[in-house]
Amino acid sequence: MKCYVVGLGPGAFSQMTPRAMQAIEESDVLAGYTVYVDLIKDHFPGKEVLSTPMKREVERCKLAVERAAAGSTVAMVCSGDAGVYGMAGLIYEVAQDYPPIEIEVIPGITAASAGAAVLGAPLIHDFAVISLSDLLTPWQRIEQRLALAAEGDFVICLYNPASKKRSDYLQKACDIVLRHRSAETVCGLVRNIGRAGEESSVLSLADLRETQVDMFTTVYIGNSQTCNLRGKMVTPRGYRID
Amino acid sequence: MKCYVVGLGPGAFSQMTPRAMQAIEESDVLAGYTVYVDLIKDHFPGKEVLSTPMKREVERCKLAVERAAAGSTVAMVCSGDAGVYGMAGLIYEVAQDYPPIEIEVIPGITAASAGAAVLGAPLIHDFAVISLSDLLTPWQRIEQRLALAAEGDFVICLYNPASKKRSDYLQKACDIVLRHRSAETVCGLVRNIGRAGEESSVLSLADLRETQVDMFTTVYIGNSQTCNLRGKMVTPRGYRID
Ligand SMILES: C[S@@+](CC[C@H](N)C(=O)[O-])C[C@H]1O[C@@H](n2cnc3c(N)ncnc32)[C@H](O)[C@@H]1O
Ligand SMILES: C[S@@+](CC[C@H](N)C(=O)[O-])C[C@H]1O[C@@H](n2cnc3c(N)ncnc32)[C@H](O)[C@@H]1O
Repeated sequence: MKCYVVGLGPGAFSQMTPRAMQAIEESDVLAGYTVYVDLIKDHFPGKEVLSTPMKREVERCKLAVERAAAGSTVAMVCSGDAGVYGMAGLIYEVAQDYPPIEIEVIPGITAASAGAAVLGAPLIHDFAVISLSDLLTPWQRIEQRLALAAEGDFVICLYNPASKKRSDYLQKACDIVLRHRSAETVCGLVRNIGRAGEESSVLSLADLRETQVDMFTTVYIGNSQTCNLRGKMVTPRGYRID
Repeated sequence: MKCYVVGLGPGAFSQMTPRAMQAIEESDVLAGYTVYVDLIKDHFPGKEVLSTPMKREVERCKLAVERAAAGSTVAMVCSGDAGVYGMAGLIYEVAQDYPPIEIEVIPGITAASAGAAVLGAPLIHDFAVISLSDLLTPWQRIEQRLALAAEGDFVICLYNPASKKRSDYLQKACDIVLRHRSAETVCGLVRNIGRAGEESSVLSLADLRETQVDMFTTVYIGNSQTCNLRGKMVTPRGYRID
């Protein structure tokens, strides 16, 4: 009768909260995208596993809610925070078509926070989080958001910066930001945050524009005040240091 | 020779990661704002405690960096994520005036994620995080960011929505958003997330405008698609559910 929607943090395990751990332990059924479920299922033996491949999100959430409605306690797991481009919303939406079940979202550390910690402190001031995926959002709307965030001098954090079909989206995004911000703007990217093969770099907006990234990367574009301090990307909050 | 900057999560403890716990355990010195240090110091006996009252941020960070430069391992603790309006930036800035020390930011769950989980799933699509505090940022710049975020149909998450001196700032912010978004826009607020006395509500933008909040509150203004589903604030990602 209960569905937990659990954020595993960026690395599955290394940065999972005790509360997330406990919710999974309490559950009879472990549901989620195959890759994440496979990462953690051995640590939670004896659970029924309901995993579905990528791009089957609606089906995945319906299965989870059905099982909860039938009396099980289900943990739907997501990477990062389940509430940031994650399954938390879809679980609530899908649940409208079933008798009421209890839904509890257990927050996790989202890629924006985890990647920021690797780079230094890019998100210390106002920031905008934008996904470059146009699977579910018209590209025009994404472009508009990039332009407005750039105009407002927000630090910009990009999720889903690329995929095989969208190899030039980051370049397009940089071009939009470049209309409002200097080519020297300090930027950063982090790949495989909290996982094997974690890598990061701090670079200029001009160089970011020429960089090929993949879907396991989170990208940061600094505001006009962001600096590179001994190789770290740091946005000042505005304190006077004297 | 090392300074950890550690995010405690919203509630200090209930949602702290094992990695944050470990960093504090490894440290000789526990530094931070008195209220947070007092919350956790009994759990980490035998540490030297360096706590300073609010509004003494620069002094607090200098003390921490000095101790690290002199050979100690220091944990500077912050609520939520140290990288979101937290001390991570200032530690890097202040450290420029000292011989190089190792700085490591340990991310935590920020108020935006933790409060979103309480409300439902408001941050499922692109969002902007804006602080209404004008102590370090000109109010005009805050107004501009609110207007641009509203125009771009970002979900808006407000930190520092009020203080004693700024009791009408949330009202002013709502007025700016109301130029672009309907009075029926679904909004939410969460107070004391993860702490004793946690309270939340889901309400219209018109009603949010009439609400008095305090500095222990995080505020969410939905985008044009955000709905109230059985009392939960949910922003759709855009999946077709049929
Ligand atoms: C569908 S979103 C899911 C976000 C997730 N719910 C979160 O809160 O982190 C997928 C995008 O998140 C970012 N991301 C998630 N985990 C990451 C990781 N471990 N390293 C780098 N980027 C990551 C990437 O930009 C990726 O394309
Ligand atoms: C100076 S900022 C610090 C933010 C913190 N570093 C974080 O990542 O959550 C303080 C603001 O964060 C929000 N906040 C932090 N902790 C909170 C909590 N437990 N409940 C509600 N709001 C909180 C409030 O808007 C508050 O005014």
